[in-house]
Amino acid sequence: MSNYVAPVRDMLFVMNELAGLAEVGALPGWEDAGAELAEAVLDEAGRFAGEVIAPLNVVGDREGSRLVEGRVVVPTGFAEAYRQFVEAGWGGISSPAEFGGQGLPQLLAKPVTEMWKSASLAFSLCPMLTQGALEALLHHGTPEQQNAYLAKLVSGEWTGTMNLTEPQAGSDLSAVRSKAMPEGDHYRIFGSKIFITWGEHDITDNIVHLVLARLPDAPEGVKGISLFVVPKYLLNPDGTLGARNDVQCVSLEHKLGIHASPTAVLAFGESQGAIGYLVGEANHGLEYMFTMMNHARLAVGLEGVAISERAYQQARDYARERVQGRALGHEMAGPIIRHPDVRRMLLTMKSQTEAMRALAYVTAADMDQAARHPDPVERARYQARVDLLTPVVKGWCTETAQEVTSLGVQVHGGMGFIEETGASQHLRDARITTIYEGTTGIQANDLLGRKTVREQGKTLLALVEEMRTDAERVGALDDEAFRQLGAALEVGIKALETAARHLIDVAATDPRQAFAGAVPYLMLLGTVCGGWQMARAATAAQARIAAGESAAFYRAKIDTALFYAEHILPRALTHAHVVRHGARATLALDESAF
Amino acid sequence: MSNYVAPVRDMLFVMNELAGLAEVGALPGWEDAGAELAEAVLDEAGRFAGEVIAPLNVVGDREGSRLVEGRVVVPTGFAEAYRQFVEAGWGGISSPAEFGGQGLPQLLAKPVTEMWKSASLAFSLCPMLTQGALEALLHHGTPEQQNAYLAKLVSGEWTGTMNLTEPQAGSDLSAVRSKAMPEGDHYRIFGSKIFITWGEHDITDNIVHLVLARLPDAPEGVKGISLFVVPKYLLNPDGTLGARNDVQCVSLEHKLGIHASPTAVLAFGESQGAIGYLVGEANHGLEYMFTMMNHARLAVGLEGVAISERAYQQARDYARERVQGRALGHEMAGPIIRHPDVRRMLLTMKSQTEAMRALAYVTAADMDQAARHPDPVERARYQARVDLLTPVVKGWCTETAQEVTSLGVQVHGGMGFIEETGASQHLRDARITTIYEGTTGIQANDLLGRKTVREQGKTLLALVEEMRTDAERVGALDDEAFRQLGAALEVGIKALETAARHLIDVAATDPRQAFAGAVPYLMLLGTVCGGWQMARAATAAQARIAAGESAAFYRAKIDTALFYAEHILPRALTHAHVVRHGARATLALDESAF
Repeated sequence: MSNYVAPVRDMLFVMNELAGLAEVGALPGWEDAGAELAEAVLDEAGRFAGEVIAPLNVVGDREGSRLVEGRVVVPTGFAEAYRQFVEAGWGGISSPAEFGGQGLPQLLAKPVTEMWKSASLAFSLCPMLTQGALEALLHHGTPEQQNAYLAKLVSGEWTGTMNLTEPQAGSDLSAVRSKAMPEGDHYRIFGSKIFITWGEHDITDNIVHLVLARLPDAPEGVKGISLFVVPKYLLNPDGTLGARNDVQCVSLEHKLGIHASPTAVLAFGESQGAIGYLVGEANHGLEYMFTMMNHARLAVGLEGVAISERAYQQARDYARERVQGRALGHEMAGPIIRHPDVRRMLLTMKSQTEAMRALAYVTAADMDQAARHPDPVERARYQARVDLLTPVVKGWCTETAQEVTSLGVQVHGGMGFIEETGASQHLRDARITTIYEGTTGIQANDLLGRKTVREQGKTLLALVEEMRTDAERVGALDDEAFRQLGAALEVGIKALETAARHLIDVAATDPRQAFAGAVPYLMLLGTVCGGWQMARAATAAQARIAAGESAAFYRAKIDTALFYAEHILPRALTHAHVVRHGARATLALDESAF
Repeated sequence: MSNYVAPVRDMLFVMNELAGLAEVGALPGWEDAGAELAEAVLDEAGRFAGEVIAPLNVVGDREGSRLVEGRVVVPTGFAEAYRQFVEAGWGGISSPAEFGGQGLPQLLAKPVTEMWKSASLAFSLCPMLTQGALEALLHHGTPEQQNAYLAKLVSGEWTGTMNLTEPQAGSDLSAVRSKAMPEGDHYRIFGSKIFITWGEHDITDNIVHLVLARLPDAPEGVKGISLFVVPKYLLNPDGTLGARNDVQCVSLEHKLGIHASPTAVLAFGESQGAIGYLVGEANHGLEYMFTMMNHARLAVGLEGVAISERAYQQARDYARERVQGRALGHEMAGPIIRHPDVRRMLLTMKSQTEAMRALAYVTAADMDQAARHPDPVERARYQARVDLLTPVVKGWCTETAQEVTSLGVQVHGGMGFIEETGASQHLRDARITTIYEGTTGIQANDLLGRKTVREQGKTLLALVEEMRTDAERVGALDDEAFRQLGAALEVGIKALETAARHLIDVAATDPRQAFAGAVPYLMLLGTVCGGWQMARAATAAQARIAAGESAAFYRAKIDTALFYAEHILPRALTHAHVVRHGARATLALDESAF
């Protein structure tokens, strides 16, 4: 089985050439965050991911986390790896220095996140959820709450969780029923939460649960949900650990993948009520959650990139080693990578992985610009772009990861179906990513409703114009390959624009028709944005070659972009057709006839 | 969890309206095999599949078959269900009456096979492999071998296996190394075989292994492989069971899916050599295997249909029960089937499942015509059609099953990722179907090389003409929906024809370029054939409605065909684009740059 080698050169290429690391490094407070620091951070993170975390991935899958007499037992090696992770300070790299973090921009933090997720998705979820809890308190907590919890969450000495889902409240959080009863300066929380990632474990001394619940007098629906911080162990006035709070892990789920990540059913208040503290204002809990969720959604989008990268590396290594059959144009039996269809599968994996990574990092850089650009108009413009692209990165990257990890199995032939090979774990692990933090359908509704129709496509159409300018520039280069890249991209952009305008029109008169095309629209936008980034990558590579730099790496960028343009980008036409012509058929069949 | 209900009405509709059951029933010897018998057989089989086999599917997945002290222990209930299966005579429904079978045509047998595979894919593999062994002996065995084994295999009292793969010989069977040393009237077999489905168990008294091996003086490569029958227990002269043969199960694979099916590593001749008997002529083993494989490939294609049907039923039932969110156009929270995107997912599953079923049954009917049509010219024409469509049914249906079963998980949201829900089992089980009995790449090479290019597209272009005639007829109906169906189909056919002609041209000068497009060509052909069958189905349904028959069932056929035409058929354009323009990019990237 191949181990994970962080694709540092590919990552730096995207950061420098496509995502504008230099521009991010010019923003106030990030003057040190240039190419040099990026390389150092990525090298070090790559080593840690490859040497410490990646070897645990298979162990974690086989052993899983188990509930033994009320205690969660994590797989062999996970506690020690997490201890090293905390010690090395990886938990807080993008957190504020004020609470012990390193305050790095997202453009540096997200590639590091990708590495953890490639190395072991199950492991990576623990710091990811901690990050969510941390941000909730950072943006909405009282100074006392921040003092009590933030430093420990930033360092990773304590972990955090997000308690949203209940059996009757999944995609629709308005159905949350957990109760919070006021009692002096705190509340007593009662209710049952499911699907709580890393909801219980003892690899740290404490766990900080963020919990959605309703006050007794709260209005029905989404406007009656409040957010509470509920620590596993209460804190004494001096900040040391006090009594065990009334929150218990009653079971762990038996899942298709990410076995090492304990997915807990948590019971709050089975005895006297769990003590919780209101975060921010009452009845604004869902709003706070959604603010944080944009970060989490981008991170889950990166999971699509990360698992695709890992699956690709494993399939490529196998295809180079496995000797089977004589390929056309060869005299003797050789490695299967020589077979045209194996190349096709590997390039389908590789080209989409690179396209997804580029879009995700560009969006991370947009987040940095939205946070710190000196001009408020620019900040708003970048924020709108981030809002538009976040559901795309989440939905498109995770859907694409299903295809990529499945191809990873296929490249292995019969061995791919054998669990010991490890290829199928990536498929199983990837399968959750289109579901949690909002299903693809939820992402698509957000993209279409809030991010496109509500503003009559303003941000989308600006993106279309930017892509078109780039496509024209690429197509104008005096080179057949670039004419081809430019032309393919222009076809995709045209399809996207037509489909988007159609949806905006239809939404005004018949929203159901419009929303029937929401997921195809999301996939269309992702596919075209991927083609855009690949064309930009090819152009940047061409410039490097022209400047006399070592050609092999850059030549590969151009070849991979051409593959994307001729194999993947044409899917845009299908998606656009479905958007424009498919809604009636989606809605026609009588419900009883399914 | 929903149980499986055999879709008898859908099946009969395809058999009667699309696959020509009446014409098959007019072939010599099949005069009883009309609509009445079909309905009786399907009703009975549906009951058996739903009541006896389907409840074992989850049990089989959880327990798996295990090797305990050299003995294979199958999951609870499997042995008893198999006993009932044999007792009811299901094993031999398409086998010759001479050996105790019922001699039914493939068009009746294949829907029954689909039911077993929907009910439990792992269970169904046991009779499927038995069928393979049975056919090898039926077509190539000596009268003595036939007398010794056939009746027991037909009844299912003994099971059969196919021993092809070795660690170094997977897709490329020319690398088989197992040896057969002559010794009197028999041979001593030595070698190790892997991936042997139902290779060892004790639910029957004996197992009849068919084994590929080489004679000492055999030429290298594919022309030096012979076929042997190697029973687990040798037979006494009176046909009773004698000594245990020298074949041992040394391990079972730990697989992603089909856990109940014991996938054995078999060691032949670890002591004195396993006694085997030559089947047919020496050095013709691979040729015999390929004859049988066409049946097996169609059966595996049916697995794609069958698992898709099961996944669809489960997702549909969940979508009707699960209440979550208020759908557009509704006042209150309701079942998720009301959400447009859930409809889109379910229809993507349903429409493709119906399209696949139609093509598979039509191909089964073509097999019957190829076997018994009175005119030898017609027999040859049908056989060519079967040869062309077999890799399509195998490759396209199994690839599509990956999408359908993955959507089945997605419809369930978070619950889909929990193993207890059962949705993910279908995804895991389906994952083997694109791999065994020849990967999709192998099917595509067969389709493109032997079935298209070698005869300059003769059979393919005749199919194109037939589809075009049907498309014109559909489009000429005085109804907007049918004009739409006809137009969409004509676009697909045009794309197919252009792509096929391109491949035939290119293959003459640059076979690597042609074969780089083999899988997209297979998917293109499958997608268009599916659209063809759906348009035929809609037309047949329209005729029924016009004749005054109950409209709901037939109206659904038209709506489902329209969905396929607007959502699935447009993929043909992407596949055709890749075939025509994608090869260069597939072959360009330097091998070291992957």
